[in-house]
Amino acid sequence: MSRSSEQSPQGGFRARLHTIIFEADTPAGKAFDVALLWAIVFSIAAVMLESVSSIRVRYASALQVAEWFFTIIFALEYVLRLIAVRRPLDYARSFFGLVDLLAILPSFLSVIFPGAQTLLVVRVLRLLRVFRVLKLGHLLGQAEVLLTALRASRGKIIVFLGFVLTVDVVMGAIMYLVEGEQHGFDSIPRSMYWAIVTMTTVGFGDITPKTVPGQFIASVLMIMGYGILAVPTGIVSVELAAATKQRPDTQACPGCGAQGHDLDARYCKTCGTALDWTSAKTAG
Amino acid sequence: MSRSSEQSPQGGFRARLHTIIFEADTPAGKAFDVALLWAIVFSIAAVMLESVSSIRVRYASALQVAEWFFTIIFALEYVLRLIAVRRPLDYARSFFGLVDLLAILPSFLSVIFPGAQTLLVVRVLRLLRVFRVLKLGHLLGQAEVLLTALRASRGKIIVFLGFVLTVDVVMGAIMYLVEGEQHGFDSIPRSMYWAIVTMTTVGFGDITPKTVPGQFIASVLMIMGYGILAVPTGIVSVELAAATKQRPDTQACPGCGAQGHDLDARYCKTCGTALDWTSAKTAG
Amino acid sequence: MSRSSEQSPQGGFRARLHTIIFEADTPAGKAFDVALLWAIVFSIAAVMLESVSSIRVRYASALQVAEWFFTIIFALEYVLRLIAVRRPLDYARSFFGLVDLLAILPSFLSVIFPGAQTLLVVRVLRLLRVFRVLKLGHLLGQAEVLLTALRASRGKIIVFLGFVLTVDVVMGAIMYLVEGEQHGFDSIPRSMYWAIVTMTTVGFGDITPKTVPGQFIASVLMIMGYGILAVPTGIVSVELAAATKQRPDTQACPGCGAQGHDLDARYCKTCGTALDWTSAKTAG
Amino acid sequence: MSRSSEQSPQGGFRARLHTIIFEADTPAGKAFDVALLWAIVFSIAAVMLESVSSIRVRYASALQVAEWFFTIIFALEYVLRLIAVRRPLDYARSFFGLVDLLAILPSFLSVIFPGAQTLLVVRVLRLLRVFRVLKLGHLLGQAEVLLTALRASRGKIIVFLGFVLTVDVVMGAIMYLVEGEQHGFDSIPRSMYWAIVTMTTVGFGDITPKTVPGQFIASVLMIMGYGILAVPTGIVSVELAAATKQRPDTQACPGCGAQGHDLDARYCKTCGTALDWTSAKTAG
Repeated sequence: MSRSSEQSPQGGFRARLHTIIFEADTPAGKAFDVALLWAIVFSIAAVMLESVSSIRVRYASALQVAEWFFTIIFALEYVLRLIAVRRPLDYARSFFGLVDLLAILPSFLSVIFPGAQTLLVVRVLRLLRVFRVLKLGHLLGQAEVLLTALRASRGKIIVFLGFVLTVDVVMGAIMYLVEGEQHGFDSIPRSMYWAIVTMTTVGFGDITPKTVPGQFIASVLMIMGYGILAVPTGIVSVELAAATKQRPDTQACPGCGAQGHDLDARYCKTCGTALDWTSAKTAG
Repeated sequence: MSRSSEQSPQGGFRARLHTIIFEADTPAGKAFDVALLWAIVFSIAAVMLESVSSIRVRYASALQVAEWFFTIIFALEYVLRLIAVRRPLDYARSFFGLVDLLAILPSFLSVIFPGAQTLLVVRVLRLLRVFRVLKLGHLLGQAEVLLTALRASRGKIIVFLGFVLTVDVVMGAIMYLVEGEQHGFDSIPRSMYWAIVTMTTVGFGDITPKTVPGQFIASVLMIMGYGILAVPTGIVSVELAAATKQRPDTQACPGCGAQGHDLDARYCKTCGTALDWTSAKTAG
Repeated sequence: MSRSSEQSPQGGFRARLHTIIFEADTPAGKAFDVALLWAIVFSIAAVMLESVSSIRVRYASALQVAEWFFTIIFALEYVLRLIAVRRPLDYARSFFGLVDLLAILPSFLSVIFPGAQTLLVVRVLRLLRVFRVLKLGHLLGQAEVLLTALRASRGKIIVFLGFVLTVDVVMGAIMYLVEGEQHGFDSIPRSMYWAIVTMTTVGFGDITPKTVPGQFIASVLMIMGYGILAVPTGIVSVELAAATKQRPDTQACPGCGAQGHDLDARYCKTCGTALDWTSAKTAG
Repeated sequence: MSRSSEQSPQGGFRARLHTIIFEADTPAGKAFDVALLWAIVFSIAAVMLESVSSIRVRYASALQVAEWFFTIIFALEYVLRLIAVRRPLDYARSFFGLVDLLAILPSFLSVIFPGAQTLLVVRVLRLLRVFRVLKLGHLLGQAEVLLTALRASRGKIIVFLGFVLTVDVVMGAIMYLVEGEQHGFDSIPRSMYWAIVTMTTVGFGDITPKTVPGQFIASVLMIMGYGILAVPTGIVSVELAAATKQRPDTQACPGCGAQGHDLDARYCKTCGTALDWTSAKTAG
């Protein structure tokens, strides 16, 4: 929550600036956000188009104009943000502060160091700025449920990934032995790359087993990977079900305030107080 | 429900026509539906066969005869439908009205504009007319459960797709830098196409990483995509479970207010009170 | 249940034969089943090895000996089965009767019609005979739970398949238009094959989009297919959970004998009788 | 639990050695484990780098030094382990004893038998030693839940795999007939490999159907495989949900016998009685 370090002063120019740039409650703030969103989308589109060599050659100057237009806009916005917050250094060091800087730095660096052209691709990180603009009220709740589910299944997912990586290393070594360099399995790391491609059911087909034992081992690995796919899905399903279930307990215990009771609970599971007065009376 | 705007008049030719064409309760209505279904299936088959060049050359005239046969049938049906409904314009503007028009338009247009041959492929949309014929009583309930589940998980799915697209753009930019044009990653959009092919575990293999760091990043992306696959599945599972459960849940016990009874429950599972007054009387 | 039509007579040679061949309760019956299982496995292995051209050339005579050895064994077994049952025709017409016949017919036919060599592959159907031998007590219960779940989700799966096929036809037609014959999408059926390969995330890569709009449409199809994969999984999960839940209700109502009560049910949902005497007393 | 057979004597050098090598409670034991973990990781990295031919040629001597350094460390550790336990033979025969031996044997064998170079890949099994070091307190509980779920679904998974293999054999035979040797389906085993590649949605694309009937059968197989993928996921989801739920379930309410309380519940959610006597006393 970088917001807390950006508390707006009670009056003056900075307060108004802060309301426009950092908040979206006022018409001016909303207009600023929408304008910024479009600027980000078009600037990303420009970066993408520039990477297509035929377009880069033909529309070189137009793209450069667009690039500097967006860079100057984002640079202005960055300066305004620094002015609007009370502690500029805290903002500059925050995650979104760094993303804001990375959005403009490559263009300036490419002027100073002519060899830093590849840095321009870094501008694609401007996409992350979208998340700052989109405060997306109702979606945040959904994202939180997803995150709760993923956080709850963290332990199981680590165990699962450890198992997958172990199978991957061992299978990579086996296939390196069985198929050998003449069939594309020319090192253990490459065999491991193949094992991951196979286990995740991606199956590029750039490296494939050619010998009969190799194809047999690959078949075992594929069926294993197929079955293993069931495990993370099961984990997330169960945790999502739990995370979804937890919400309806807007029913906080009147005695101790504890939450997380089951839907059919009649007494608080922490202090034993009757939870729902109406149904308690009927029962009594 | 375009049905409401097509209320049949209480008597006359139009009423009988409406019953035959739009309903399936009478023997004539059923026969009409079955005939239409076969006409659609055969006409789609004709469009498909025509797209195979060897068949198009050899059976050109037979296919053209079939095509005009089906076009005239569908055109007649379209006219009859316009006559049968009280407000023809409402029908013509409805979803199925447009599909019915698209089913016959391309054939007529290809006569007027000789260059509109490619429009003929649009005739494949006739397939959508199948859904009009199949009123599929008991399947509609199932489709509704599925739709309820998908609608309930809309928020989570948008968050999920936003995350997938962000990873896709960032990964596309990284692979464009790491692998470069000589290995097929010749623009950011193409790299993004590759990232989607990889993340969804499709893995065509038309573009594949060749360098060691590229293969390492691809491996991370694959395992990530593999794990991410678990999220939509979990979302839909949980919402489907809720949608399936919800139906019986409207039945709260009149005695103690308990919910979650099975569809065939006649007495409350918590307090034993009769659940449904009508069936309770029959039982008593 | 073809067993009911094969009731063993109360005495004599046929009864003993029936016990040995059709049942597995006696030591002789068990020994027969084990021997048959090995014969099936080895005979399938022989068919497979024969299909490998290098082995077929080198071990031609050995394979032919093995083939006739197994054919004669299975023919003898078929005759014994015909003798052992009371109504041979009923057996011959049953599913397993036909499989038993198909297991021996190709070998004999290949002698009479020299061109019927390809029929020999039909012998692989001998594999189905394994299911006759494996009566697999405890696994049958599990299979039944799976079947119950699949049968319960039949409606939803039909709706789902209908949707997948519609998307497939429409996408096939679109890609045929967009990519055209020069990129491998040379007919609508072939484009549909590609659409299925892509949507199911198989991704062979034998046909791939080359144009930018084609790759964009393919990306949409892939993400759609990825998300759609969640639907059948969710369906089966929910129905499996229901099918599994149903089992624990060994708790039949003492009043009306109804089953399928929830685990926390205290009163029969059909007749309202208290379900569990012990907990009913404690509650009272 | 090989620990029970390695009970440490109450005093002396062996006891201290055992505490350091086999346990992780003391600072010395922890330091030993961390050092061992790094040694394993670096030694695996060395084996992997050695398999890359360009690195093997350039850094041959450095890799050989590293290899012997790790081999001697692991050999010393193996001898110390033999000394530290009371029954060395029991340790040597245990799973981890064998892994420890396999970690050092290949290096020594490659000196005696110059042809045993390929045995060096076996050293990758050193990875399994990581599991000995990582006692991973809190993750073990998670792994146990996963194992419980997989064990509970064993029956269903066997039925499922049996079905998959049967479809695979039959489909392999059909595609061998339909496509034939000229399209890469040159034997039934190879066709079966293709069928597994297709059904598991891996889709390498090294073998693909070329004929129209072949592509049609492949489409059916793909959609089947896609739907079948739902089954193991559903199985594992349901069993995982059961395994996660089971833990708290042992706690039945002493007042009314109700089960299914949450892990943190102190009072019965149905009747309000205190659930756990110890914590009830503390609360009172």
